[in-house]
Amino acid sequence: MTLEYDGTGFVGWQIQPDGRSIQGELAAALTTLLREPVTPVGSGRTDAGVHAAAQVAHFSTDSDQPTASIRKSLNGLLPPDVAVLDVADAPEGFHARYSAIHKRYRYRISHGKVALERNRVWTLFLPVDEEPMIEASQHLIGDHCFGAFCKQDPVPDSTACQIRHCRWERSGRELVFEIEANRFLRHMVRILIGTLVEVGWGRRHPDQIPELLAAGDRGRAGQTAPPQGLCLVEVTYP
Amino acid sequence: MTLEYDGTGFVGWQIQPDGRSIQGELAAALTTLLREPVTPVGSGRTDAGVHAAAQVAHFSTDSDQPTASIRKSLNGLLPPDVAVLDVADAPEGFHARYSAIHKRYRYRISHGKVALERNRVWTLFLPVDEEPMIEASQHLIGDHCFGAFCKQDPVPDSTACQIRHCRWERSGRELVFEIEANRFLRHMVRILIGTLVEVGWGRRHPDQIPELLAAGDRGRAGQTAPPQGLCLVEVTYP
Repeated sequence: MTLEYDGTGFVGWQIQPDGRSIQGELAAALTTLLREPVTPVGSGRTDAGVHAAAQVAHFSTDSDQPTASIRKSLNGLLPPDVAVLDVADAPEGFHARYSAIHKRYRYRISHGKVALERNRVWTLFLPVDEEPMIEASQHLIGDHCFGAFCKQDPVPDSTACQIRHCRWERSGRELVFEIEANRFLRHMVRILIGTLVEVGWGRRHPDQIPELLAAGDRGRAGQTAPPQGLCLVEVTYP
Repeated sequence: MTLEYDGTGFVGWQIQPDGRSIQGELAAALTTLLREPVTPVGSGRTDAGVHAAAQVAHFSTDSDQPTASIRKSLNGLLPPDVAVLDVADAPEGFHARYSAIHKRYRYRISHGKVALERNRVWTLFLPVDEEPMIEASQHLIGDHCFGAFCKQDPVPDSTACQIRHCRWERSGRELVFEIEANRFLRHMVRILIGTLVEVGWGRRHPDQIPELLAAGDRGRAGQTAPPQGLCLVEVTYP
């Protein structure tokens, strides 16, 4: 399944003891539709407030419900803030998380108050200088350990990620960051953004990025940017 | 002032006895800031649920508050769904409504369920054919009486409008309509969209548009499309 969701009203992708989760809403709708307990597996978790334009999830079922009819039926059962864009039969052995070869996230920053996109951007009131942010982000490309840009609780076994590309683009009053990697650690994009914005404010030099990567010390990187600017835009499979 | 607002949580632009209005929120913020009763005058009303990316409004004040500081102060006083983009001194005699020479609206239609943009588009579940809609909308350009495309209560004195241009554009899963005119009647864009969508469904022929314009009979035009797809995007002054 390819899914779009507005993360504003959710505790995140993953089922939690309390609160609405995207996985939980999907599990309820699938269980109703297929008349057996079904819990979908996502390509990865997204945090509370984080959006997806194309999250991918898989599920197994013994139901003989035709695949072609599942999208429409599910959309009717799901709340307005989750939409199923596509449902297809998966190849044998497919796993939404383990089969993914790379993922792409987008983070949107806006200058000054916005009304229409207020749940989709991080609004900065102090302007940033774009050039040093572009320079700093070039240091991220390639194979690095991202321990400095990762939530420390719990510490992951491996912090190695391969960044295939990242870029900043201006779009009207917005600055939009896109990053594609083979994997992402918890809060990684948001901590990168928090750090790059400090570069844009002139509080850090772009050359600090290689040092931060090498040291792997979360305490030396920037703050975690707020979730609502972040959106999972693509998951790629072989 | 140039204003952006998310119309979802409002009864519309105009102050009403009950409910949140954009004009009312602005009047309250201006009155607090300028320490005198101030009610802004907009370039026109927008209905409940209709958005604005660049509504224009004017106000008069005896306050010596510097113009340059008003935007920031107002944004701090206003709720999150209204943003002041710009404040400037107006030329003598300027009137946000009477000085406007044309306005531009955008209407967004989407095929199939959407989650992220659900309060910004009209979701169609029956696909439309784009070509006859483009053909039909070409008949709108120029000077016509739009009595057939106007809310009848009360009947306006004049239904003459000059359409400068209108066009349809495809953008991913969306069809976007833009129309620019010297003036718009009540519900005019929404009734036009309701009618053009029926053309896109093959229920009406594009050649019906000139007949509808000539007859001026509201009962023969299509249904009023829902408000959330509509956004006021530009107001032009000499």
